[in-house]
Amino acid sequence: MKALERKIIEEGKIFPGNIVKVSGFLNHRIDVKFMMEMGKEIARLYPTGVNKILTIEASGIAIAVCAAYFMDVPVVYAKKGKTKNLQSDVYSAEVESFTHGTTYNVVVSKEFLSAEDKVLVVDDFLANGNALKGLISIIGQAGAEVAGCAVAIEKGFQHGGDNLRKEGVRVESLAIIDEMTDDSVKFREQ
Amino acid sequence: MKALERKIIEEGKIFPGNIVKVSGFLNHRIDVKFMMEMGKEIARLYPTGVNKILTIEASGIAIAVCAAYFMDVPVVYAKKGKTKNLQSDVYSAEVESFTHGTTYNVVVSKEFLSAEDKVLVVDDFLANGNALKGLISIIGQAGAEVAGCAVAIEKGFQHGGDNLRKEGVRVESLAIIDEMTDDSVKFREQ
Repeated sequence: MKALERKIIEEGKIFPGNIVKVSGFLNHRIDVKFMMEMGKEIARLYPTGVNKILTIEASGIAIAVCAAYFMDVPVVYAKKGKTKNLQSDVYSAEVESFTHGTTYNVVVSKEFLSAEDKVLVVDDFLANGNALKGLISIIGQAGAEVAGCAVAIEKGFQHGGDNLRKEGVRVESLAIIDEMTDDSVKFREQ
Repeated sequence: MKALERKIIEEGKIFPGNIVKVSGFLNHRIDVKFMMEMGKEIARLYPTGVNKILTIEASGIAIAVCAAYFMDVPVVYAKKGKTKNLQSDVYSAEVESFTHGTTYNVVVSKEFLSAEDKVLVVDDFLANGNALKGLISIIGQAGAEVAGCAVAIEKGFQHGGDNLRKEGVRVESLAIIDEMTDDSVKFREQ
């Protein structure tokens, strides 16, 4: 998605440790009009065969909602840890966070995923792929089908996306960063 | 919003401790089509005088995005705790969570709120009002103006909304629960 690549170049900031900060439009501050364009693009990539979107709190929620709007499906978001509003009856997976350098547990209530579901996994970022793998594990636990994954920005040089593709998972990224230096970003041709 | 009251009665579940669980459409699973209707209603209540929506991760993000879509404004969401992607240059406030029985810190990067902003505070739930008070404090730290608050469900019997109204803050709730028993919910006439 060329408009996203342009936005990353114009508004993104690169920090040491291969961190690209796009908190001005993707997370923290959300450019809702642009997020809707990204949601429309995800809907174009997955025109059929999806009846539910699964994402993970917090930064996946906005783009998932925008995609779901155009696909006319509900969103389920995995929660980090348990809250007392959640039943003990959950699917769960462990996820290691690249950004935070921590491991956390994600849970989805069993009532919101079932064997009949064809699930699109949506997230804002794909780096080493651990969050997507956790969500795919949860979909497997439910006996549901993974229709594919859709993320806004993939860090291609961390290979999480390509590893999933090698395993046969369809992974669509609206922009793939293959190289990053302190003052430049190189995108993969798609 | 009568449609929300009906949905709470039809799909909500009441648990001991005055907890109303609406995770089937408002948080955890999001009925995006219905969430958009709620966003449209918030936009109807605040037709002018707002240039930014402020909410709090994670459950406020979806309804904030839906309202922002109809109001054509960006969303900023306060983060719970700090991540290494965030600058030290933040506004912050302490919030006591009714649901979780804990206290946490919320932060907003200073670059995303300024004295020129007229901010609508949006959240999914309003109970004792601590989350809204934290967000209002952050808006004050930025020297910005609080245009008002809009929430999906207010627990009227916990008085957080009425306390804010007494302080002169405009608070609009799409549904206000004034009484809850194990098998019934009584809404405030609006």
